[in-house]
Order: sequence, then structure tokens, then C-alpha cells
Amino acid sequence: MSNKAVSYAGAGKVEVIDIDYPEFELKDGPGVNPANVGRRVDHGVILKVVASNICGSDQHMVRGRTTAPEGLVLGHEITGEVVEVGRDVEFIKKGQLCSVPFNIACGRCRNCKERKTGICLNVNPDRPGSAYGYVDMGGWVGGQAEYVLVPYADWNLLPFPDKDQAMEKVLDLTMLSDIFPTGFHGAVSAGVEVGSTVYIAGAGPVGLAAAMGAQLLGAAVVIVGDLNAERLKQARSFGCETVDVSQGNPKDQIEQLLGVPEVDCGIDAVGFEARGHGKNAETEQPATVLNSLMEITRAGGALGIPGLYVTGDPGAADEAAREGSLSLNFGLGFSKSHVFVTGQCPVMKYHRGLMQAILHDKAPIAKAVNATAIPLDDAPRGYADFDSGVAKKFVLDPHGMIRS
Amino acid sequence: MSNKAVSYAGAGKVEVIDIDYPEFELKDGPGVNPANVGRRVDHGVILKVVASNICGSDQHMVRGRTTAPEGLVLGHEITGEVVEVGRDVEFIKKGQLCSVPFNIACGRCRNCKERKTGICLNVNPDRPGSAYGYVDMGGWVGGQAEYVLVPYADWNLLPFPDKDQAMEKVLDLTMLSDIFPTGFHGAVSAGVEVGSTVYIAGAGPVGLAAAMGAQLLGAAVVIVGDLNAERLKQARSFGCETVDVSQGNPKDQIEQLLGVPEVDCGIDAVGFEARGHGKNAETEQPATVLNSLMEITRAGGALGIPGLYVTGDPGAADEAAREGSLSLNFGLGFSKSHVFVTGQCPVMKYHRGLMQAILHDKAPIAKAVNATAIPLDDAPRGYADFDSGVAKKFVLDPHGMIRS
Amino acid sequence: MSNKAVSYAGAGKVEVIDIDYPEFELKDGPGVNPANVGRRVDHGVILKVVASNICGSDQHMVRGRTTAPEGLVLGHEITGEVVEVGRDVEFIKKGQLCSVPFNIACGRCRNCKERKTGICLNVNPDRPGSAYGYVDMGGWVGGQAEYVLVPYADWNLLPFPDKDQAMEKVLDLTMLSDIFPTGFHGAVSAGVEVGSTVYIAGAGPVGLAAAMGAQLLGAAVVIVGDLNAERLKQARSFGCETVDVSQGNPKDQIEQLLGVPEVDCGIDAVGFEARGHGKNAETEQPATVLNSLMEITRAGGALGIPGLYVTGDPGAADEAAREGSLSLNFGLGFSKSHVFVTGQCPVMKYHRGLMQAILHDKAPIAKAVNATAIPLDDAPRGYADFDSGVAKKFVLDPHGMIRS
Amino acid sequence: MSNKAVSYAGAGKVEVIDIDYPEFELKDGPGVNPANVGRRVDHGVILKVVASNICGSDQHMVRGRTTAPEGLVLGHEITGEVVEVGRDVEFIKKGQLCSVPFNIACGRCRNCKERKTGICLNVNPDRPGSAYGYVDMGGWVGGQAEYVLVPYADWNLLPFPDKDQAMEKVLDLTMLSDIFPTGFHGAVSAGVEVGSTVYIAGAGPVGLAAAMGAQLLGAAVVIVGDLNAERLKQARSFGCETVDVSQGNPKDQIEQLLGVPEVDCGIDAVGFEARGHGKNAETEQPATVLNSLMEITRAGGALGIPGLYVTGDPGAADEAAREGSLSLNFGLGFSKSHVFVTGQCPVMKYHRGLMQAILHDKAPIAKAVNATAIPLDDAPRGYADFDSGVAKKFVLDPHGMIRS
Repeated sequence: MSNKAVSYAGAGKVEVIDIDYPEFELKDGPGVNPANVGRRVDHGVILKVVASNICGSDQHMVRGRTTAPEGLVLGHEITGEVVEVGRDVEFIKKGQLCSVPFNIACGRCRNCKERKTGICLNVNPDRPGSAYGYVDMGGWVGGQAEYVLVPYADWNLLPFPDKDQAMEKVLDLTMLSDIFPTGFHGAVSAGVEVGSTVYIAGAGPVGLAAAMGAQLLGAAVVIVGDLNAERLKQARSFGCETVDVSQGNPKDQIEQLLGVPEVDCGIDAVGFEARGHGKNAETEQPATVLNSLMEITRAGGALGIPGLYVTGDPGAADEAAREGSLSLNFGLGFSKSHVFVTGQCPVMKYHRGLMQAILHDKAPIAKAVNATAIPLDDAPRGYADFDSGVAKKFVLDPHGMIRS
Repeated sequence: MSNKAVSYAGAGKVEVIDIDYPEFELKDGPGVNPANVGRRVDHGVILKVVASNICGSDQHMVRGRTTAPEGLVLGHEITGEVVEVGRDVEFIKKGQLCSVPFNIACGRCRNCKERKTGICLNVNPDRPGSAYGYVDMGGWVGGQAEYVLVPYADWNLLPFPDKDQAMEKVLDLTMLSDIFPTGFHGAVSAGVEVGSTVYIAGAGPVGLAAAMGAQLLGAAVVIVGDLNAERLKQARSFGCETVDVSQGNPKDQIEQLLGVPEVDCGIDAVGFEARGHGKNAETEQPATVLNSLMEITRAGGALGIPGLYVTGDPGAADEAAREGSLSLNFGLGFSKSHVFVTGQCPVMKYHRGLMQAILHDKAPIAKAVNATAIPLDDAPRGYADFDSGVAKKFVLDPHGMIRS
Repeated sequence: MSNKAVSYAGAGKVEVIDIDYPEFELKDGPGVNPANVGRRVDHGVILKVVASNICGSDQHMVRGRTTAPEGLVLGHEITGEVVEVGRDVEFIKKGQLCSVPFNIACGRCRNCKERKTGICLNVNPDRPGSAYGYVDMGGWVGGQAEYVLVPYADWNLLPFPDKDQAMEKVLDLTMLSDIFPTGFHGAVSAGVEVGSTVYIAGAGPVGLAAAMGAQLLGAAVVIVGDLNAERLKQARSFGCETVDVSQGNPKDQIEQLLGVPEVDCGIDAVGFEARGHGKNAETEQPATVLNSLMEITRAGGALGIPGLYVTGDPGAADEAAREGSLSLNFGLGFSKSHVFVTGQCPVMKYHRGLMQAILHDKAPIAKAVNATAIPLDDAPRGYADFDSGVAKKFVLDPHGMIRS
Repeated sequence: MSNKAVSYAGAGKVEVIDIDYPEFELKDGPGVNPANVGRRVDHGVILKVVASNICGSDQHMVRGRTTAPEGLVLGHEITGEVVEVGRDVEFIKKGQLCSVPFNIACGRCRNCKERKTGICLNVNPDRPGSAYGYVDMGGWVGGQAEYVLVPYADWNLLPFPDKDQAMEKVLDLTMLSDIFPTGFHGAVSAGVEVGSTVYIAGAGPVGLAAAMGAQLLGAAVVIVGDLNAERLKQARSFGCETVDVSQGNPKDQIEQLLGVPEVDCGIDAVGFEARGHGKNAETEQPATVLNSLMEITRAGGALGIPGLYVTGDPGAADEAAREGSLSLNFGLGFSKSHVFVTGQCPVMKYHRGLMQAILHDKAPIAKAVNATAIPLDDAPRGYADFDSGVAKKFVLDPHGMIRS
């Protein structure tokens, strides 16, 4: 069977190519860890991909900021219908429409048993934690494709209770694979509770998802900061306050909004490609966001950090950053008893509850992030538009199944 | 200065009487524990009462179900303006408009330090825990009055940040003294989180407050059960599903609503004066609600129990209940690994966050419970109407300061 | 291959019989739920049983207090060596020595994902939760045998890091399958922390394990109560204080020990076969322990309830108890804001940490419970002795591998 | 009445001087914030100091690493007997022997109500959080003196239940004012639980207290690293494993001890005056400890950071450090989903439980840290010896009340 897929084609470039239809085995290919080649996946299923989103973290690779090899098939935000079931799958059934957490997890190691599926010990020979279609993550083939293999299917997949109902809301539900739980995790980690004031650095899709997550948790005020006017407008569309950091340090604008220059909870939805504030907005300053959050988060508050920080960044502006090292005002954080919560979101901890919120009309996340379905073939344009800073979340629709 | 107040006048009867204007000392009077007589309260303030609500637990006394003595001044849901400040009060200032938690707490004992202000060890000589205007609670004078003394004011009081803004929302803010935190505590204790399905037994003010609390916490579906059609209608007015328990066991109706006969979280907002379901609806069956919640709460779920259970109930139908003993299907709960969370809500743990939610328009609690302001002089009518089962929460307005 | 096993042979009787050597399928037999017959278990392993303990909950069956059918193979406390591996097992290897949690769990359902393996949804067609060799638990064959099948082996099994080291401590490690985690769960649920005072009702193996669990958690004082002098002596052997409840209500004896008549944390290690205190010690009074714990646990404390309560008890003294209904002083618990934590211990949450404590010489649990190895053939004597109240925990040693 | 006290006398120098006997008012003096001058302290008591310890954080000042003014009276680790009681004190009584948490807290602000007494909002005009005898902490007079004023006494003080019993253990109990809770907080924050493996950087008194804290929490293995052989020997004296970081990166030595090069939990008991490992051991490298802990703490683990980091360090080796900025391998921590918990220990959260552990012979902390009582007059020698790296914790004994 044919299987078109989006692949990385060198810095600044993606293309749609033909790849093999999945089998229940991890085959060799660009970016596949040798120790994973030939691994049997009888616990897996093959999905017909219904939706697969372009993610900001894909862009790190596409911009050439990583060591991703050409030919790597992209895509870790996957929703699909089960078309084939491995012999060791017991509960997931052919025909079910499912959400796939972007973190691949075995469901059998110490970390999985502790609900830390973002750092599963058994799926990536390089280090704890894995994902589909991502550099240094073991080599699991990406899901911006017509078909994709999902291992440990009984553990990883979240089936939707009613397929027709789910297709009605598929633009919302497709956000369960990554950004909605990731943003929500940021809010939970930052200690958002009923009545909190919250500042979120970054109005990209993860920042907007964090904003909706904070709203779901009962935040009194959610403030989103960014340099990009269009994205700030998007944030205001669902009740957030906004701060334009191109105008300078967010502290003053927060004081205008709240009467005090601080918030209860700080969320970093930017990560290592951060830029400066105000007149430094054109320069990459990877520690800007974290240092700013320490300044504006109240003593006793926490910082939820879903934004990605990396162990190596070959394209960074200075040597420290190239080694993943940041110059942090740690003494300031210490004096305020801050707690810093880092790491990839363990999607499985949250996706079921967020699904329920979506299905019962409590969480219009597609609208919040301006989800926009495009054909798989238009992926290159989607990547380019997203990179230009449009306030859209692109959802690839390989089989034309999504109604607009 | 004159000080009119609502007092218990024997089974089924309250009256408005003149009482002494408060001093910074606990004087003798009906229901005052001798060990508390003469206690200095220099850490207290005197409030001009702006709002003081009639509570379902007041009704236990007024119905003659307790040993409350005649002449006891009622009222533990108090919002007021500081008119006099004791010499040892440091941070609360004259003129501030404040919410008073119904539980009186010293802010100095082990339990207060552990945030368990519902069972403060230093304010009630009889047992841990105290409240204004309540039998066996130490004898602190009630606040259904023009003026009231609030001890340990720096610890207990929650001042509103802006008095004018607060007066605009005073019908909402007055619910912070008891039912909003109490209902919210039920939801928190029951483990409500984003995406939960929740069943609340009881559509009185506490049940409705629990429903709004569950909504604030992100519940996917909130179902409220009661015998009273008007109260169920009130629950539907802000997005709850409802179950009419006069039609029988709630299990079947829940299955119709959710597709499964169980919920994630169960909340008992009824307490010891529970009646049976279906054809037993006319009989008091004090264990009905708890046994029903064990039946309909999923394995692994929790039961939040803000509804009051008492150590003695002289008016109970059978001897076991007269001693506060209930016949519980504990084996069923055990087989489902249920957790039971009991006790008076420690209001201070929640009131600040809920205030923020109200002030930022996230929690229209007054509308949800149908808050209805009446003059202090109309208290007898208010008690009677509330007892008849109207879907209203009566707010006494001793100084005519509440705009309708 | 031969496979001797201990089987229930009618009230008061067990016998050692020959049963089939396990296959990777659940076969029909006494007590097997029809819906489970023929179930494939390719995710399982076959263990050569090294140790399998007699448990107090086995005695409920053997005493004829349940509907267990004759011929049911007993045993849910299993430690063994992997001798055969199902085709879907990926990480557990032949030759490993492993502890088996008594609760069977699929590792794929909502509850397993939430660490609630005691109420797995997929292994018992009757209700959430399952165990080996137990009535109404789905029909998984017990492990008081030479060989046993363990399903979902990658999920359920805890392999010991070094087989030789483990064999040196196998009498300790065999307690990881049930009583050590169960007692520890009681202590955790009761809120035991560094400096707590703790009362444990029951000095049987679970009570003693709870005592050691409380010590590991840093309790300042651990008090164990029982009617049985020998068991109390056993409790004193590792630093517990004791209370002889045949002398009356534990409250007074606690006051003598602590200077106050209450403890921070209460643990029920008795369950539904409780007897009265003092002169009522000969009579079964199923609510005695819980009511007593409410009396002696401080306001704000919690009750950890690992002791078993059942939904039906055909042999109970009165009708309410036959239906699993208890007459509880719930009003007292409410007035003290008690939290009640019930249910089977989810062993997997604790066994790894407790194993580490054992391997690093922090938890001499075998000595604490007086672990006593006997041949499988002596099981009938072991059951009889245990039932007579000796202060021993019997460990069946089917292959003569345990050094005394 | 006379009142001798230890005062800072310029870089490298302390001296014993005569100061005023305390009154119930905060007077002007070296280091007193003008906004605090004249503040009434009727909620305070005057203590006769029984024990006051020299702390590593005092040394930051004495070494001249801060802006502390000459004449500042030192001492924030205080145990004493109540000799005078302010008029607003209700529960603390004259004659009681009490432990004083080093963090001064009002018991009335949002943070105190949330148990965050380390960052009380009302006692230090400069920033949240305060302490006795410390630069930039508001100007509360230190307790290395014969007498000291303790504000908000009902809230802050922990009275010992029996004075004679307490005097027997006063060398243990005096550690409750700071280092025992501080070390314990590090262990709690690092997620130490029963069975954990733990690495503690630093074998000074806080490191040793963290080690005992980890043991109390049930750690399986506690490893302490330092450059100082005598302090490592002290750590081994109560069952810790040790790592000599002068021999290089602790990773390899941990692997030799545990078989794996990582631990579950990492604790930084060093702070900003950290030095390098191995051949860099002579150089200050303020980020060494944190970067090393990220390397050796397992994915999913947490870092408890009781070691002090400051917002400004005038004496630092480079400009970044002078501004409290550290070069952290944050990307590494992110890839391992580390949580970083910073800040001053909120002593009140822990001191009662740790007192119980001491009184019931579970926590021989004095022996663990080698507590050594010396007369107040010998304070200069004590500071010098401590600074030289002896493995002793010096306890000043102003009234000669401590038996050796």
C-alpha cells in the first residue's frame, strides 16, 4: 500500500515523499538508532492517520538547529484509526479512532509505572524518553504520513468512546496528542489553581494551550506575553489578557493589569529559542524567559516549564548555549523559594481528562489555537507559514477526512 | 449602640431581639461555655454586618434537632466592615470590608498551622472546632445581627481589595464565609479534576455551591440529585444535569446521562437528615446518601462529605441514629477502594482563591444559589421559606446596604 | 511435569493435591469465572515457586466464611523463578527471581495507568480487582504450588537485581508480595510521617508489617493492640509499644503510654472479623475496630484501613454484617474531620522501594513477623497453627530452596 | 540586665559585646531596616537563651561575602526559656523551654497561612522572608546572646512538652531551629521516600542533617560527598556512604557504590560558595554542585536545594556570580524532567515532627553533626574552628546550662 509522508530535507526544507507501509517491526532508516533496528512490535497497531499536526518542536529540526538527518520522517502529533492490530494487542480493536501521545512509552518500566511516560526507559536506546519522528529519540517513524506504526498500543492509545462524535470534534481532539496536555502540564506544574493569576511566556500553540489549561483549572486571570501581535490577538480571542514584550519587560504591563507586578504562577511556553524583551527582541537570549519568570512570579510560586530546553544546540549564538548551558539568576529564584518543573509532558497523565472536557464542550481548544486543516501535500507550505509566525496551528489531513 | 440580632426561640421559631453591642471580651449568655466566659479578645475586631446568610445547618437547630438553648444568637455566615479594632490587631484596618470564615480559629495551634482551621484546638473548650452562633461550639455570638465580634482578626479575616468593587458583588462574596468554600471543599475532597464526572447528592445551597466548585475545577459533567423539583431547576440554570431521586435510585438516571451507571466523584451535600430514595422519600434514612454514593462512585473514586453528620441527634428516628451511628455498606466501599473525606470545611484554605474567581467574573455563585437579600427583621420569614424548600439562599441585610 | 498445590477442601480443611502444570491459558476449574475460561496468557510467565505464604485472608476462605468452592487452589503471596516466558513478554527473562504482587493487573486499563493496580478493570469479569487463588477474583490459579502462571508478567513482576543476594534474604523478600506493602499502605494511608504517633489495631502479620512500615516512615511511637499475648510480644520484639485490648478500650492504655489518649494516625489491620474489647472480646463485633479508631485518632488524623471488609459475609453473626453493613459512629469521625482510606493495597506502588529497604538492611521484616518456612506438604499444619493464633508467618517452600 | 552577644566586627572577625536587654519593640541598630524601627512587639516574648548555634550561613557574613554592617548581632539558631511575655501572647507561658525557627513569621499573611513561613510577607520590609541576626532580613536582633526577643511568639515558638526531659537532649533539640529541618526539607524536596538512593553534596552540618533526614524518611542508601576527609568520616559515623569529590566527579564513585552511576534523589547542601571537583577543588565554581546533581540524579528525580544561593555576592570570582547568576546545564535537567526545589526551609512545617523523633530516640542528630557546646565568650574561637573545616557543630551556651 502507498504511504506518503513528510520528511526533513535539509535546513529550511521539508518534502512529501513515499515511504514504506508500516510493518510490525522497526526498520532501519534515517535517524533510527542501530540498537532499535529489527525490533519486533507485535504489541503495536497500524493507524490510518486522520490528523497529524505540525509542532513548534518540529521546527527546531526543520530550521537546522539539530543534528536531524535528511530523510527523517516528521510528525509526533497523531490521531488515527486502527487498521491493523499486532498479535499481542488485547484491548485496542480494529476500527477504533484513537489519540496517540507523542511520547512513546513501554508501559512496563519503572518510570511508566510511576506515570512518568515522558521518560520511559525502554524505547530509546540513547536516553530516557522518546517520540515519533524526532531526532535522537530512537528512530520511531513519524506520523505526518498516511499510515504509522504505534508500539505498545494497549498502553499508549486513547480510544475515543464514539467515532462519529469524535470526528465532529477531531480538530479539538487532535490537540490531545501533544500541545493540549503539554500546555496543561505547564499550568499544573506552575501550581495553577482556582483563583490563580498566571503569566504565560509565549503565544504559540503551546502557550495558547497552556492558557486554556489554566482557564480549565480555574485561574482568575490568564496573561499571555509574546512579540507577535497576531498571536496576542489570538490569545485575546478566548479571554486572555496580553502583554506585548516587544514593548519591554512584562513586569510593568502586568502591574497595569493586576495592580501588582507579579503573578502567582509562571509558565515558560517558549524554551531555548527565546529572544530578548523590548529593544533586545531581535536577539536570541535563551535565558530571557526563565529569568523574567523569576522576576514576575511571586515568592512561593512555581515555574512550569513545558518549553523545550536542549542538551546541545549547534546553532546557538554563543558557546554556553551550544552546550545547553544557560545563565540563570538562580539566586533570585532561591530567594523567592521558587520551584522549577521541567521536562516533556507525560501526556498519558492528562489526555483522558482533557478528552472528557472536549467531548463535553468545556474546552474549545481548536478554536483557541486556530486549528487549520490542510492536505498532507501542503505540508511544506504549512511549515513555512507556521515559521513565519501566523497564529495558526496546522493540522495535516492525509486522507481528506476532516471537515472544515 | 443598638444591636438587633436573630435568636433561636424554641423549636420551629426564631425572633429578632436586641442584644448588647459587642465588646472585646466573650460575655456569658445562652450557649456560652463557662470556660469561655470572660475571655479577652483584644485580637478581635468589631464588624458592622453587611451580609449574614441563613444556612442549612442553622435549620438543624431551629428545627429543634439539637440541644441549642433558647436565646442563642444565630449566624455564622458573615461579611462586614471593620468598625473597631482590638489593641493587638496589626494588619486588619478600620474601614476594610471583610469575609469571615464560619470556623473560628486561633491561628496559633497545631491544627491551624497545618491549615486545619475547621478543628482549631483553642477556641472551643468542648472539642476541636468552633463557629459563630452555634450550639456546642464554645459560645461565640452569632452574626445575624447588626454588629458582631470576630476574634483573632488578623488570622481569620479576608479583606476585599477594593470596597466599592466588593459592594457590587457582595451577594457573591457573602458566600465565601461558608457555602462556597464548603461546596468547593466537597468537590476537592471528592477528587474532582479536569474532565471528571461528578454526582452531588443534594441541590440545596451547599450542593449548588459544590456543583459550581466542580465546574471551576474543570469537571466534564456535573450531576445534581434531589427530591425537590424547584431546586433541581435551579441546578439546571447554570449547566448542571439533574437526577430526581424521588423517582428512585440515582444509578439508573446516571446511566441514562453518561452511558455508564457510575461517576468518578461523589459528593454528599445532604448529611444526617437524609431521606430515602423513590418510595422511601418521605422517611429519614440517614445512611441513604452515603450508601448510594458508594454504589455509584467508581472503584478508585473518592467521596467528599461536606454534609453534616453529628455525634448525637436527639430527634432521630431510631436509637442508632440518635447516637450518630449509621449503618453503612462499608464492605462495598472497601471493595472499590473508596476514600471518605469528612469534616467541616477549613474555609481559610479556599476563600482567597474563590474570592479571586468571583472578582474576576469566573464564579457567579450568587446567581447559582439564587441569593436573595432580605432585611434582618424578615429573618423569621426567611427561615420559614428556606425550610419549606424554596430554591433560594437568604442573605440578611441588617443595614440595608445591599442593592438588589 | 508434576505440580503439587494446596487446595481448599471444605470448611476448616485444606489439602495438598496434584494439579496441572500451568500453560499460557486460563483453564476451567473450581472458582474460575466462565468469562475467563480459555483466556490466552501469552503475556505471562511460568514461575517455579520459591516461596508462597499463608495469608490471613486465605483463612477467611478456609474458615468457610466465603463462597469459595472446594478444590480452589490457594495462594496469592508468591515469589518465584521464571522458568518459561510467554511470547509477548519482552523484558522479564528466564532465570530471574521475582516477587509477584498479589493483585493481578493488566497494566493497560485506566486504573492501572493511575497506579490503582488493586482495582484493575481487565482481569476479573466480576468486579474491579483480582488476586491469585481467591474466591470471586476471576479464577486465577493460586500459587501455593510448585509452579504458577503469572499474567502480564512485564507489568506485574518485580525482578530482584541479584539472585544469590535475594536468596539470602528470601524470607524477607517473600513479604513483598502482600503483607509488607499492605501494612505499609495502611501506614501511608493513615498519614504516618516523621514524628507521628501511631496506633495499629491487630498484631497479626499485616499489623506487624504496618508497624514496621510506620517505623520506616519515621514514626516516633508505634503502638500495636491485640487480644493475643504472644502476638503482642512479637510486636515488642522490634520496638513497638503494645496494648492488650482484652483489658478494655485501648484509649486508657494509650494515655498511659503517651500522656494523651489519642494518636496522630490509626490503622485497622483487623477487618471484618473483629471482636470486641475487654469483656466483649469473645464476640464478633465487626465495627469495633473502626469505631475505636475514630475515638482514639486525633481530630485531623486519618484512618488507614488495610484490614479486609467484604460485601457479603454469609457466616456473620447478624444480618447487617451478612450484607457487609456496619454500624459506624460516623458522626464522631465527621466531627474530627477524619479521612478513611480503604481498599486492597496496590502493591506495585510500594514493592520496589520496600525491596530496596530490605536489600540495604533497613527492614528486617521476616524477623518482625516471625517468618517460618515449612514444606508445601505441611501446609495443612501451617493453616491450623496460624488459625490457632501463633505469632508466626508461615512460608511454604515447595522446592526446599529456603535455608532456615 | 546585662546582655552579652556575638557581633560581626568586619571581614573575618566576630567579637562578644554588651548589648541592650530586649524590650517589646524593635530598636534601631546596625542592619535594622528603617521601616522596622520602633515596631511594637507585644506579640513577642523574651527568651533566656539556652543554646544558640553557629551556622554556615553566619560564615557568609563573617567572611565578608555580604553587605552586613559591623556591629550586627549574629545568631538565628535559638533555643531558650521564656522569661517575659508580651501582652498579646496567649498560649506561650513564662518558664517554657522552646525552639525558635530561624525564619521569623507573622502567622497572619497569605504565605504563613499557606505554611510558607520562610517567605513571610510582613516581617521584612525588603523582601519576603526574614531571620534573626542576618543581613537584609529586616534587622531582628540575633540570638547568639544571653537574651533575645522573639516576635509573634504564639505562632513561632515550639515549646517542649517536658523541660527536664528536654534539657537532657538539648544538644539534639537545638538543631530544630535550623539545620535539622533545613536538611530534612532538602530530603523531602528531593523526593526521598522509603527505599530511595540519595546523594547529598556537602558534609557540613546541613549536609549531615540532610543525611539523617533521608535516613528518617527510609532511604535505602545515603551517600554524602565532600572535599573534607574529617567531615566524610563524620558522615560514615552514622551509616552514610561517602564520596571524596577531591578525587573527581562523584559519578564514578557512585557507580562503584550502587552499581549504577545515578541516584534517585539529589540534595545540594553546599550553595553558592561551591568549589570544583577533582583538580578544580581549589577554585570557586558556584554552579558545580547543581550541574553535578543534574548529571547524577536519575531521569524523573528531583533536586532539593537547601544550600543558599544569593541575589548578589560582592565577593564572587566573576561578574555573573556577583549578580547571583549561574551557568547551569539546564538542558540536561530538562531532558531528565528534573524538578528543582529552592528556598529557605519553612522550619515550622517540620520542627514538631522532628522534635517527636528526637524525644522518642529516633534521631540522634547531635551526635550525627558532632554538636559541641562552648561558652558564649568562646564564640570567636568557634567561628574560626568552624571556618577551618572541623567536623563540629558549635553550640553557644550563654548561661552554662548545657551539660557536656
